[in-house]
Amino acid sequence: MTDSDNLELSRRRLLGTVGAAGAAGLVVGAAGGAGISAALPGEDTAGAGAGGAPALTTVGATSVMFHGKHQAGITTPLQSRGHLVAFDLAPGAGRKEAAALLRRWSVTAKALMSGKAPAEDTGVALDAGPSSLTVTFGFGRTFFDRTGLTSRRPAGLDPLPAFSSDALDPRRSEGDLWVQIGADDALVAFHALRAVQKDAGDAARVRWQMNGFNRSAGATAKPMTARNLMGQVDGTGNPKPTDPDFDRRIFVPAGGGGAPEWMAGGSYAVVRRIRMLLDDWEKLPLDRQEQVIGRRKSDGAPLTGGTETTELDLNKLGPDGKLVIPDNAHSRISAPEQNGGAAMLRRPFSFHDGIGPDGTPDAGLLFVCWQADPLRGFVPVQRKLDRGDALSTFIRHEASGLFAVPGGPAEGEYVGQRLLEA
Amino acid sequence: MTDSDNLELSRRRLLGTVGAAGAAGLVVGAAGGAGISAALPGEDTAGAGAGGAPALTTVGATSVMFHGKHQAGITTPLQSRGHLVAFDLAPGAGRKEAAALLRRWSVTAKALMSGKAPAEDTGVALDAGPSSLTVTFGFGRTFFDRTGLTSRRPAGLDPLPAFSSDALDPRRSEGDLWVQIGADDALVAFHALRAVQKDAGDAARVRWQMNGFNRSAGATAKPMTARNLMGQVDGTGNPKPTDPDFDRRIFVPAGGGGAPEWMAGGSYAVVRRIRMLLDDWEKLPLDRQEQVIGRRKSDGAPLTGGTETTELDLNKLGPDGKLVIPDNAHSRISAPEQNGGAAMLRRPFSFHDGIGPDGTPDAGLLFVCWQADPLRGFVPVQRKLDRGDALSTFIRHEASGLFAVPGGPAEGEYVGQRLLEA
Repeated sequence: MTDSDNLELSRRRLLGTVGAAGAAGLVVGAAGGAGISAALPGEDTAGAGAGGAPALTTVGATSVMFHGKHQAGITTPLQSRGHLVAFDLAPGAGRKEAAALLRRWSVTAKALMSGKAPAEDTGVALDAGPSSLTVTFGFGRTFFDRTGLTSRRPAGLDPLPAFSSDALDPRRSEGDLWVQIGADDALVAFHALRAVQKDAGDAARVRWQMNGFNRSAGATAKPMTARNLMGQVDGTGNPKPTDPDFDRRIFVPAGGGGAPEWMAGGSYAVVRRIRMLLDDWEKLPLDRQEQVIGRRKSDGAPLTGGTETTELDLNKLGPDGKLVIPDNAHSRISAPEQNGGAAMLRRPFSFHDGIGPDGTPDAGLLFVCWQADPLRGFVPVQRKLDRGDALSTFIRHEASGLFAVPGGPAEGEYVGQRLLEA
Repeated sequence: MTDSDNLELSRRRLLGTVGAAGAAGLVVGAAGGAGISAALPGEDTAGAGAGGAPALTTVGATSVMFHGKHQAGITTPLQSRGHLVAFDLAPGAGRKEAAALLRRWSVTAKALMSGKAPAEDTGVALDAGPSSLTVTFGFGRTFFDRTGLTSRRPAGLDPLPAFSSDALDPRRSEGDLWVQIGADDALVAFHALRAVQKDAGDAARVRWQMNGFNRSAGATAKPMTARNLMGQVDGTGNPKPTDPDFDRRIFVPAGGGGAPEWMAGGSYAVVRRIRMLLDDWEKLPLDRQEQVIGRRKSDGAPLTGGTETTELDLNKLGPDGKLVIPDNAHSRISAPEQNGGAAMLRRPFSFHDGIGPDGTPDAGLLFVCWQADPLRGFVPVQRKLDRGDALSTFIRHEASGLFAVPGGPAEGEYVGQRLLEA
């Protein structure tokens, strides 16, 4: 028995309770389509684990399924840590090397997401449970030329239009391949990032990499819509998996619609590194901030009244005869009803990379949104925001990526197999 | 009533359960000297809160006391997020401005640590509880000349010796003032960082700022010694507050010993940004990694056997007649018994700032250690490590700071008042 076998064994032993709970069919309700199973905390389940290790608490024990109709990490509840990383295929690497890489990545992602360590492991995630780890893979526009698959490139990967407010750094934008990692433990997320990088081997090189975070589970009294680093409740208008048209808007349908068959069950991710000019923003008095957004800062309710989930009353006039929610308020312009029903699922991480070269905080939002068709999701909304959003003075889009994220792999399949081996 | 009053009110209301629990004297066991109080999760305590908001879970509800013999953030259990930030006094700012700044900072730290929002708040931490927030303040060597207090500068702030393996960036080292922030929620920690920066106003400017993290509460089955990004169990030999000589080794005594009276109950923090050369480290086979450290990676036990807390058997020979724990093993060289009983309390955060300019991970350890006297704590250990530590090939000290952290403020006092107003 090798040392790495030993490592894996002790890790499996530690996680024995998770496996036992999974086998018993314990499943906690998932907000989205990806299934989530978790060991129940408590001494009773602990007794089921070999070695008598106590049960992991829910934070560590929760795992997300790798296989399924859709990839994990799209409807999975926001995790507290995230890494986004883009790779370019190495010179000389083509379709064959890409297929082998996606196969390696899938093996690794499946193992880590279920709480197992890969054979040659760094040990960074030892002791911890899977902690809701998700690893999600996507293809950029340039991937298809480099692998001789140009004819199979979907129209959904046509370049995003240029926006007047863009200040994009091409070195931190796009890429042949994209991986999104999320977990509720920072070391589990970092461990997965290193494993993905190691798997890339000689086939691909990191193009850019970004780190993000969200609120910790349990920091608030009840699950709440996230806040961003401007202090705004952010994500209120998000479509819900229970909406009747959710699947149609977020996921590529199987068969027809002009989408390639290999994208069935997949989605398009638009990634924007949105720097927040916090020094300027924080100088703005609260009432002005609320005019910029069109919502109350305290609870996210529209300025026209109600609670966070109350619809905006876009025509309501104040005592001064002016619109209560101003013409250029961010929430008005981005409202789906103002954009022909365009819908995308926003699933961002905040980022904070310390102090930038200009002395201001290098912080903001790693905006990630999901849609069946970027031309009916991100693009029309961003076009309108680009023209007249009061918030645009306080933000700067610094990087951009558009990725085709194929559907979830069936048992025995690897991510992207239907593209790479068809 | 102003908008910011409203904000504060709704925040107090949300946190009503915490206050109620605190008044009822609920206290959960603290590993260290700083007291920790927490609301118990559950509907019963929720009923006590005005507005009927449900109780925060322990992650959010736990608060650490600002006042006390020692500042918080030294013996407080490691939080999952941390910020280190150093300031230099602005040109023209002296003792008076410094005193006013420490007073502002103390008001802010006390409010935030108890879950209250300051008057002009960014709102970033709204909804969340105090989440074990600690804010800890220290003075660098240069502070004393700039404030006309050179005669009161303690010998403990004499510059650290140069070490041959140092590759220090002066722009990210030292500083007039140092603030350590820790919390179990990323937005709570960021919020405190921004509040501290805002308080600095025209009196001080950020010199450097670093972000760190540790494992999330609940990711492991039981509280365990931390792991670092090399995958090593890190912190096993740490002195414990229950050790009979803990206080003497970590905190400056009141009266005598040559230490100034204003440092009574204080401690010295040595801060090192230690880059880990992970690409090299991860190429090393497991058994070689374990020889470098002298401990098993899986559980941190010495190579001479036992469990994590078993003492090293430094004289044990293997079947080959060689020392089982090699002469240059990190754990041998840093063992207190090899350093005249030198003891420091290591309380680090990991860091990961993406990919460095050289293409390797810009990741490692924000090493923070605490001691009553750096010449009997960090310095002798680092001298020995500098000469012969097998680990030195895989790490690089990139920044360094030494700060005098005064004792905790009494009720009505601000941090450093005994220095600045005596």
